[in-house]
Amino acid sequence: MDIREFVLAKAKEAKEGARSLARASSKQKNLALLRMAEALQKRSKELIRENAKDIAYAEKKGLSKAMLDRLSLNDKRVREMARGLVEVAALPDPVGEVLKMWQRPNGMTVGKMRVPIGVIGIIYESRPNVTADATSLCLKAGNSVVLRGGSEAIHSNRAIVKILRDVAKAEGLHEGAVTFIDIPDREAVMELLKLEGIVDLIIPRGGEGLIRAVSENSRIPVLKHYKGVCHVFVDRDADLAMAEDICFNAKVQRPGTCNAMETMLVDKKIAKSFLPAMAARFRKSGVVIKGCAETRKLVKNAVAAKDEDYYNEYLDLVLNVKVVKDIDEAMDHIARYSSAHSDAIVTKDYGKGMRFLREVDSSAVLINASTRLNDGYQFGLGAEIGISTDKIHARGPMGLEELTCTKFIVLGSGQLRE
Amino acid sequence: MDIREFVLAKAKEAKEGARSLARASSKQKNLALLRMAEALQKRSKELIRENAKDIAYAEKKGLSKAMLDRLSLNDKRVREMARGLVEVAALPDPVGEVLKMWQRPNGMTVGKMRVPIGVIGIIYESRPNVTADATSLCLKAGNSVVLRGGSEAIHSNRAIVKILRDVAKAEGLHEGAVTFIDIPDREAVMELLKLEGIVDLIIPRGGEGLIRAVSENSRIPVLKHYKGVCHVFVDRDADLAMAEDICFNAKVQRPGTCNAMETMLVDKKIAKSFLPAMAARFRKSGVVIKGCAETRKLVKNAVAAKDEDYYNEYLDLVLNVKVVKDIDEAMDHIARYSSAHSDAIVTKDYGKGMRFLREVDSSAVLINASTRLNDGYQFGLGAEIGISTDKIHARGPMGLEELTCTKFIVLGSGQLRE
Repeated sequence: MDIREFVLAKAKEAKEGARSLARASSKQKNLALLRMAEALQKRSKELIRENAKDIAYAEKKGLSKAMLDRLSLNDKRVREMARGLVEVAALPDPVGEVLKMWQRPNGMTVGKMRVPIGVIGIIYESRPNVTADATSLCLKAGNSVVLRGGSEAIHSNRAIVKILRDVAKAEGLHEGAVTFIDIPDREAVMELLKLEGIVDLIIPRGGEGLIRAVSENSRIPVLKHYKGVCHVFVDRDADLAMAEDICFNAKVQRPGTCNAMETMLVDKKIAKSFLPAMAARFRKSGVVIKGCAETRKLVKNAVAAKDEDYYNEYLDLVLNVKVVKDIDEAMDHIARYSSAHSDAIVTKDYGKGMRFLREVDSSAVLINASTRLNDGYQFGLGAEIGISTDKIHARGPMGLEELTCTKFIVLGSGQLRE
Repeated sequence: MDIREFVLAKAKEAKEGARSLARASSKQKNLALLRMAEALQKRSKELIRENAKDIAYAEKKGLSKAMLDRLSLNDKRVREMARGLVEVAALPDPVGEVLKMWQRPNGMTVGKMRVPIGVIGIIYESRPNVTADATSLCLKAGNSVVLRGGSEAIHSNRAIVKILRDVAKAEGLHEGAVTFIDIPDREAVMELLKLEGIVDLIIPRGGEGLIRAVSENSRIPVLKHYKGVCHVFVDRDADLAMAEDICFNAKVQRPGTCNAMETMLVDKKIAKSFLPAMAARFRKSGVVIKGCAETRKLVKNAVAAKDEDYYNEYLDLVLNVKVVKDIDEAMDHIARYSSAHSDAIVTKDYGKGMRFLREVDSSAVLINASTRLNDGYQFGLGAEIGISTDKIHARGPMGLEELTCTKFIVLGSGQLRE
């Protein structure tokens, strides 16, 4: 089999699927999603049986327990997958919304209408639930998908895709709405990334290595979800009890996530009254503190932070702490070391809050709230396909709207160019 | 000199410039643009003297008359360049606009704020006015530029950039707001395209060859302005006099532009009453018609259109004409051959108008109006940096808003993630 031809055929099928989805009504798309949810539950045994093949192979290959856990499907997980589809069906359809409309002096009306992007390539790693999750969001926004999951989950993904395609067809959509590259060869990904003009967008979901490899080799626009080196700055005018709660939540509530705090910046003026108690609370939860010289004077057991530590996404119970002169030094530090994901200030001072809001350039800038809140569900977007660290097209949590583009529409009555 | 180091230093300078621009008020940016306009006019002689060096070299190299014309500056062109800057200063500042803001159940307020993109690389060909035009739009939207003009205009561009930088500095902005890669080596462009993380967006302005080369080699997102294979479909329910005016305007008013019509689709039912008179009017203006078999029965002198003709952007007084069975065949043709730039229907039928509007997937879809109207000025955007044929980030005419991105802002009162 010629891999290039194979991938091209899949993408062309997805293009047909996209055209059928672009024409589908919200009702038709929602019905398909609900039927897909039913079918996944009804055919749960089939899914778990196929998943067992992946698990057996992974065990033989000696994959880690954590990997095996991420890979495995059971009744509960299938139920959750199905519930995800039902939730997406309940969200408002972004397609067809006219964002604004205005009149021109020559009498024509011009508007901007939200439309699907077209064909979206999803490249992901081991978790098979991504197959249903990502597909449901793309479909709801009128896009077809070309799925490329991790080779270790190939039987599970193939089974999920079969169910989704069966339903799509039964509901009068083109089967190409859901396409899957079901060969394990790495070359297939490389071929997919060349299909500019057929595939409109690539979303890689996985670790930094995967995202970099995809983005360096793609001729198609890529929406990236890079790391989060997130900061909380405790200003001299902060409510210190609130600051303590926010910093604790930002670091400890779930340290392995991209919106967890990695560096806490503390205003010199309140360092003495704030840091020792804060550090004691962190210590109780097992947080290791890497501090600047000033920090180490106030926090016993803090180890010395090196410059490169400030670039680090620990994803763990480790925290950099730095004492800064004022808000300017805090914002300079953020401008230099932040990955521009989520950065927060705690302050009671209106002016400093507004400056921080305006001048810090991150996907989410928060006043008096935990960085952990930068999330599609928390922000009320309904669902998210990831948190974009890109500045182009979408930034921050990506919901359904971010899976659309716009076109200009003109309602004329014979207007010509003079 | 190490080219890599040289380009990297320029980009880093631009990054500093971007930070200073992001903090600048609208007043400060507008004042800088007005002073730049004054300075260009005041130092017009200096510009024309430097331009003469480029012209002399281009003549020696034997460049075409058209090329020499595009390259040359005179008092009038400098005045126009300056007026462009004054017009951009008068446009509303997109930065800081809060697109929407909403309350979450936990009491925090979440909003989406428009912010600059950062550093924009502009890669362009011979016309030196692009240097001032593109810079003014980027600056107004709070972005710094890394300019890379055609080597044949290097003296002119260097002189323009010097003036713009002098003013930027005098007005309290960082000089890096306007940076220019003033070495002719092609390698410099390749190095620029690798600077992911420093340069945020690349906009190539020029022919298809330039755009393809940039997009294939760039690790940075590229906004593309590809060709326009634009259609007008004359429906059986069209006002035929209006249809004639629209088709004539779309083809003849300025055939060398990307939004000019290249293929006219005519409903079979009105072909006999519409085509002969329309063709006669085209013939008077020297339009060569390439027609399908049906067309050739009705239009004498029409030559046979081949399948590949329908993909062609003639940019000239040549037109494909095809008779179609109905709106479905017309939309199928458009889905297959259109470059998704500008496509129009002429009809009095409400339902068909609405179907065309919804189902045709192009940057502008028009009812009863000429494709030539797909333009930033015509649409009322004030100015445009080009017409994007991309679906990601911006589609259609790109004005100031399209040169920004958004960030989420959170106004909290101690909210934590549960």
